Amino acid sequence: MADWNELGKVARNWTYEAAEQIKEALANPFKVEAKSGPDDLVTEVDKNTEAFFYNKVRETFPEHSFLGEEGTAEKLENTDGITWIIDPIDGTMNFVQQKIKFAISIGIYEDGVGKVGIVYDVMADEMFYAVKGVGAYVNEVELVAGKERPLNESIISLNARWLTETDHPHANPLLALVRDSRSVRSYGAAAIELAYVAADRLDAYVSVNLSPWDYAGAQVLLEEMGYRATSFSGETLSLLNGGTVIAAKPALQREIVSAYVGEEN
Amino acid sequence: MADWNELGKVARNWTYEAAEQIKEALANPFKVEAKSGPDDLVTEVDKNTEAFFYNKVRETFPEHSFLGEEGTAEKLENTDGITWIIDPIDGTMNFVQQKIKFAISIGIYEDGVGKVGIVYDVMADEMFYAVKGVGAYVNEVELVAGKERPLNESIISLNARWLTETDHPHANPLLALVRDSRSVRSYGAAAIELAYVAADRLDAYVSVNLSPWDYAGAQVLLEEMGYRATSFSGETLSLLNGGTVIAAKPALQREIVSAYVGEEN
Repeated sequence: MADWNELGKVARNWTYEAAEQIKEALANPFKVEAKSGPDDLVTEVDKNTEAFFYNKVRETFPEHSFLGEEGTAEKLENTDGITWIIDPIDGTMNFVQQKIKFAISIGIYEDGVGKVGIVYDVMADEMFYAVKGVGAYVNEVELVAGKERPLNESIISLNARWLTETDHPHANPLLALVRDSRSVRSYGAAAIELAYVAADRLDAYVSVNLSPWDYAGAQVLLEEMGYRATSFSGETLSLLNGGTVIAAKPALQREIVSAYVGEEN
Repeated sequence: MADWNELGKVARNWTYEAAEQIKEALANPFKVEAKSGPDDLVTEVDKNTEAFFYNKVRETFPEHSFLGEEGTAEKLENTDGITWIIDPIDGTMNFVQQKIKFAISIGIYEDGVGKVGIVYDVMADEMFYAVKGVGAYVNEVELVAGKERPLNESIISLNARWLTETDHPHANPLLALVRDSRSVRSYGAAAIELAYVAADRLDAYVSVNLSPWDYAGAQVLLEEMGYRATSFSGETLSLLNGGTVIAAKPALQREIVSAYVGEEN
């Protein structure tokens, strides 16, 4: 049986090492390419960082599987055994243009169950991490469960662009959700926004389209805090395919699914 | 003639001192009240912080005028002489619920001309400041002017709630602006968002309703960087009355006014 505490420590050390390389790379010009479109950027820094983790995992734990955003490894066919799911730079647009508010995200799963979760906001030097059954932390401070707030006192995070796309089937429920909440935030880095829910800085985070590497790390944090992350229809998030995501404290999560984004809406 | 460098140093030292008191207050329960409505909060920490600055200015510079968000002093009747315009905690909702991403904002003006600007993101320990004609800085690093980006490569910051208020006269142009930009952010603290424009972390910030204390500090930063902050109709921001605000690099600012939010739209 794996020692998850020890594996978490190894993963955090690699994360700090990768972050140093990213900060050095930020000081010099680097190549940016568009992937699926002009808003979906990748840089050589993303690719080098993913290769760094891939090589570390391959050398140290040759029996572990690996899934990364930048395609170093195949799409996962199943969740058997121990799998590392990594986003080398979550928030690439922030990385390129803001040079702040991007994260390294790592989830380590055993047979589909989240065991270690890491979201490291590199420039803020905030290490959010959790080990299943042990606790969730930001840097050395243990996170404590926040109180549930009614929706009209809740701060929700989402990508405001969805509010303008009136043809999208999910656009209308999101408009109503924004109107009924206290306030909206948007940081452009899903892993950080999900970690903020775990840390009680946001009451909920909503996205109509994320990939497993966006949430694999933060999901372990959320589960450890007793919060819920599901699809809009209330199903457990898949590690094999992405889709809609709603993460929040349990009562608020149920309210948002049942009254706003669930399939019956 | 005032020594603005020296006055800037005094103001920054008071800011650090006030920030220590705010951080201590955060560790204990504090009283929260609603002002104009449930989204307009004030705490005893806001009030105590404003009183701290008011007393410092009164004692040290009895000939200076003072305007603060929490009403320690009167509304400004005119901009004659040297005036301190202070928001003791910009982003009070963030302060209360997130416990991050709030700022102390100070603008020092002489006869309506911005001389010293300070925006201090307390929890991130980021001191944005400028002295007119001397330079603009974040902590000890001098800010350099960012390159202009076309709107479809620009990151815009705004309060997403405005996108849902279709009856508001400014709602429609903002929907189009969001659609045509690369991406949207929202941090819930206008002074920080305006300072981010000065620091090239955001290309533009747009608000349909700010008060002088929200922008008095950051405006000095923006002017020192050669950027523009105006009302939606392109007029210089007033220190006597609040209203709409668009801040951006000059070409983008002109484009947003002429093609989106200006009165002819």
